[in-house]
Amino acid sequence: MIELAANRYGKAAIRLVRVARDPGGHRLRDLTVAIALEGAFEAAHTDGDNSMVIATDTMKNTAYAFAQDHLDGSIEDYGRALAEHFLEAPQVDAATVNIRAHQWTAIDVAGTPAPDAFVRGGDGTRVATVKATRGGTSVEAGVEDLVVMKTTRSAFSGFPRDRYTTLPDTDDRLMATRITAIWRYGSPDLDADVTFAAVRSTLLEVFADHDSPSVQTSIWIMARAILERHDEVEEVRMVLPNLHHWLVDLTPFGLVNDREIYTPTTEPHGLIEATVRRGEA
Amino acid sequence: MIELAANRYGKAAIRLVRVARDPGGHRLRDLTVAIALEGAFEAAHTDGDNSMVIATDTMKNTAYAFAQDHLDGSIEDYGRALAEHFLEAPQVDAATVNIRAHQWTAIDVAGTPAPDAFVRGGDGTRVATVKATRGGTSVEAGVEDLVVMKTTRSAFSGFPRDRYTTLPDTDDRLMATRITAIWRYGSPDLDADVTFAAVRSTLLEVFADHDSPSVQTSIWIMARAILERHDEVEEVRMVLPNLHHWLVDLTPFGLVNDREIYTPTTEPHGLIEATVRRGEA
Amino acid sequence: MIELAANRYGKAAIRLVRVARDPGGHRLRDLTVAIALEGAFEAAHTDGDNSMVIATDTMKNTAYAFAQDHLDGSIEDYGRALAEHFLEAPQVDAATVNIRAHQWTAIDVAGTPAPDAFVRGGDGTRVATVKATRGGTSVEAGVEDLVVMKTTRSAFSGFPRDRYTTLPDTDDRLMATRITAIWRYGSPDLDADVTFAAVRSTLLEVFADHDSPSVQTSIWIMARAILERHDEVEEVRMVLPNLHHWLVDLTPFGLVNDREIYTPTTEPHGLIEATVRRGEA
Amino acid sequence: MIELAANRYGKAAIRLVRVARDPGGHRLRDLTVAIALEGAFEAAHTDGDNSMVIATDTMKNTAYAFAQDHLDGSIEDYGRALAEHFLEAPQVDAATVNIRAHQWTAIDVAGTPAPDAFVRGGDGTRVATVKATRGGTSVEAGVEDLVVMKTTRSAFSGFPRDRYTTLPDTDDRLMATRITAIWRYGSPDLDADVTFAAVRSTLLEVFADHDSPSVQTSIWIMARAILERHDEVEEVRMVLPNLHHWLVDLTPFGLVNDREIYTPTTEPHGLIEATVRRGEA
Repeated sequence: MIELAANRYGKAAIRLVRVARDPGGHRLRDLTVAIALEGAFEAAHTDGDNSMVIATDTMKNTAYAFAQDHLDGSIEDYGRALAEHFLEAPQVDAATVNIRAHQWTAIDVAGTPAPDAFVRGGDGTRVATVKATRGGTSVEAGVEDLVVMKTTRSAFSGFPRDRYTTLPDTDDRLMATRITAIWRYGSPDLDADVTFAAVRSTLLEVFADHDSPSVQTSIWIMARAILERHDEVEEVRMVLPNLHHWLVDLTPFGLVNDREIYTPTTEPHGLIEATVRRGEA
Repeated sequence: MIELAANRYGKAAIRLVRVARDPGGHRLRDLTVAIALEGAFEAAHTDGDNSMVIATDTMKNTAYAFAQDHLDGSIEDYGRALAEHFLEAPQVDAATVNIRAHQWTAIDVAGTPAPDAFVRGGDGTRVATVKATRGGTSVEAGVEDLVVMKTTRSAFSGFPRDRYTTLPDTDDRLMATRITAIWRYGSPDLDADVTFAAVRSTLLEVFADHDSPSVQTSIWIMARAILERHDEVEEVRMVLPNLHHWLVDLTPFGLVNDREIYTPTTEPHGLIEATVRRGEA
Repeated sequence: MIELAANRYGKAAIRLVRVARDPGGHRLRDLTVAIALEGAFEAAHTDGDNSMVIATDTMKNTAYAFAQDHLDGSIEDYGRALAEHFLEAPQVDAATVNIRAHQWTAIDVAGTPAPDAFVRGGDGTRVATVKATRGGTSVEAGVEDLVVMKTTRSAFSGFPRDRYTTLPDTDDRLMATRITAIWRYGSPDLDADVTFAAVRSTLLEVFADHDSPSVQTSIWIMARAILERHDEVEEVRMVLPNLHHWLVDLTPFGLVNDREIYTPTTEPHGLIEATVRRGEA
Repeated sequence: MIELAANRYGKAAIRLVRVARDPGGHRLRDLTVAIALEGAFEAAHTDGDNSMVIATDTMKNTAYAFAQDHLDGSIEDYGRALAEHFLEAPQVDAATVNIRAHQWTAIDVAGTPAPDAFVRGGDGTRVATVKATRGGTSVEAGVEDLVVMKTTRSAFSGFPRDRYTTLPDTDDRLMATRITAIWRYGSPDLDADVTFAAVRSTLLEVFADHDSPSVQTSIWIMARAILERHDEVEEVRMVLPNLHHWLVDLTPFGLVNDREIYTPTTEPHGLIEATVRRGEA
């Protein structure tokens, strides 16, 4: 017998800009939204019966329509409004909305922010994922593509050596990574903008402040600090590529390279992932 | 209490080319390899203790060294040799090796394949993932980035309409997608090259042959055919973006556009995922 | 005094698919088109006067409308129809149309090509650029992203050595490159499909056949062959990155690597460009 | 007769990080460097004679070696040192060095910049190109990928209408673009860091401040301001894609969309290029 197992569908890469034309200056939101539904969609697969299939085009339209009334607050609140709307359809068991927020800043004109002109930029992308089910709504927030580097206070030594090991121990290397950090809140009811800013600050400060004996330990130290300082957070998941920077050998040119000139590389790279959470006492 | 939950680490994006210099003509393998380990790595996180941490640089070295003796057969066999090698370390509970194979073809010179010159190309990328644990070794194979289109025999109608629905029913649309299809074998002991080619043919033939009332149904029809025709396969997972092609409105120019001129788009796109498997009788 | 110098404008990234629904099987064209105009556009810059500025939206509409009647033949003919149309506007001195053609192949179903299902792929992208001016119309054709490799018969030695030179001479290296080759025809009146296929074959065959003492010489040999064999071609311009493949040092593992295992790299890469043409006798 | 015409070669995508370990805090430079030479390289092409061909690997080594002594100042000064070094070889007629500088900022820890931890980010990429010839050295500076948006004060109307024109006139649209702006200095002897910052400020301020009747006029206004305010600059070249943002039609949902909700798009896009310079009086 052949059967349908896990399945879901939706609309991805919905691009949306909202301009709030406040008298004191425009506010700009630039989002990429993805919506996915799970539920009673077996007949759509096995019988070609679309009577339960909310069109993904309808999802896109809903994302635009809801941007008018539900996007004055946090992206988490907007995602929640969308997810809970789709959950109203009886065939839907779970609606997941993922949002990436692209950062724009008012252009500085002689010390004053322009009211109606912006430059895109910043460091990393803020993300949020809201999942609504009959059992409740969960909210995850986080950052992606937050590229950071420690120029000292990073080591890697004491690892096992076998026939294929050539890497020397080091007590002072560059450590660069592109942080993906996603944290889950205990409740969807919170001021998500304030909490996001606070958690992000913790993440960056602890990255800057700690001594790193390995990327694994760095994840543990950063995630633990987030959990210790922010009661709203239940769990932190991190994915950290190790973007190696190799010291260039300048001795053929009669030069000494004392941790000064490096070659950044992307292929290959280490890839370290871990989840840290509140456990049973 | 704060605790470490799921974690793994490894080396990704290991680029590797192997040239087998056979007298009758060179054979070329061009792979991107990723290796990930799970196991007793808690102390590496919480204590900065690297004594159990096989360096990701060692993983890379091993991938190169093993390419010499273990890459004459399928990429699945190479992946298995690597995964089972890393499982020999007692602290490792699971070793996963993912391989992407980039396709090169001997250049045609006046009807004869060149023995030592190649062109890169083809359609889609062959992938394999081997996971070795104390309980045994599992093998998944598949394709990524296999971009296909049906120029007719694709419909989408009968879906529910609400306040936000504007999409009309259609009984003849273009259907284009970038197939990710991953299938799991019941046993790691098989001629993986022969089976891969056979499953891939089934996938493409059924894509070409069937009438599609929705992307969901297309997944079901293709996956079921793979399971019906290939006993080696236990489960098929597909991810199909719906790469919309919109009919261009030429009426302002006094022209009739009878399913001839389309605008391909990538943002937004539908995204349909499902797993189909052999179930209990 | 401040003055306007060279300027041009247009529409880029116009995506267009055309399906010719022939009874014997559909024919599929998938193009990315860019249109640029030069001419009497000074007032648009300096006075904000748009009365001469053909809207780039109009260019896009024209590209779609012309796809119906002018795209049964080669992309060069389609580009010419578009370019000469825009030249009809008196303010236009030069209209340039660049076309990239994405390759689709009918899916093979048990030995027969499907009439209405296609797979995207192939090696390299065919490109064409047509420029129409009052003095006449010029046509360039070519390929981009044609990735090729020679696994032997490539050397690089005898280069000068200074304080900063560490590269050893080699008489047998891998040579891999991503060919951009653009050739200009002496006249726009030709069967551009037939000539394109012939020139492309020459390019690949000579790449496969020749002994390469350097990328520079390879360009010369390939371009000269194109000019010698194809009277329609007046000039060939090539851009060849040298995509280095470094032999992996396996000696730490007790292995000998006799030109078998390589690391492909993209950063940094050599970049060699040259134009070869018919000169004065 | 077949002859070699324009040609050049070099090394591209040289990735380089330099850490200056000052007691008060590390300074970080992260560059991508490309070097290209022109000169007496005909024999390399036509005769396979490499005796004049400075290896591109040597160029890379030189870039690393020079980073130690020549990168304490501006990237323009570093580029100049490299370019003038390669020009010392008698066979070289022109040496061009292009540098892209990736921006890192010290991480803020409770109001204080970390001495040894950085986050990558910012808006746009600073670029410089230095070309050294026997006749002298020219320096260009600029920005790439500087993405900006005006949420009002941008119009496009009064353009000609023909059979293929459907775009309505608008007196209030979003204008978004990804600025490439390159300016040439009259002399290579200047404080390139100070001037870069000043010109970049002018560019952004004028973008924010002006009323735009078209992208063409915006280029003129911005470039003219740069030339008027910065005597060091002789010429400004700009490439501005028009990244269209379309107002979403919400009327099917009973909503009014008064310049609030937009769909950003990238395909197709307008593309406007112009050079503005000091002319003869």
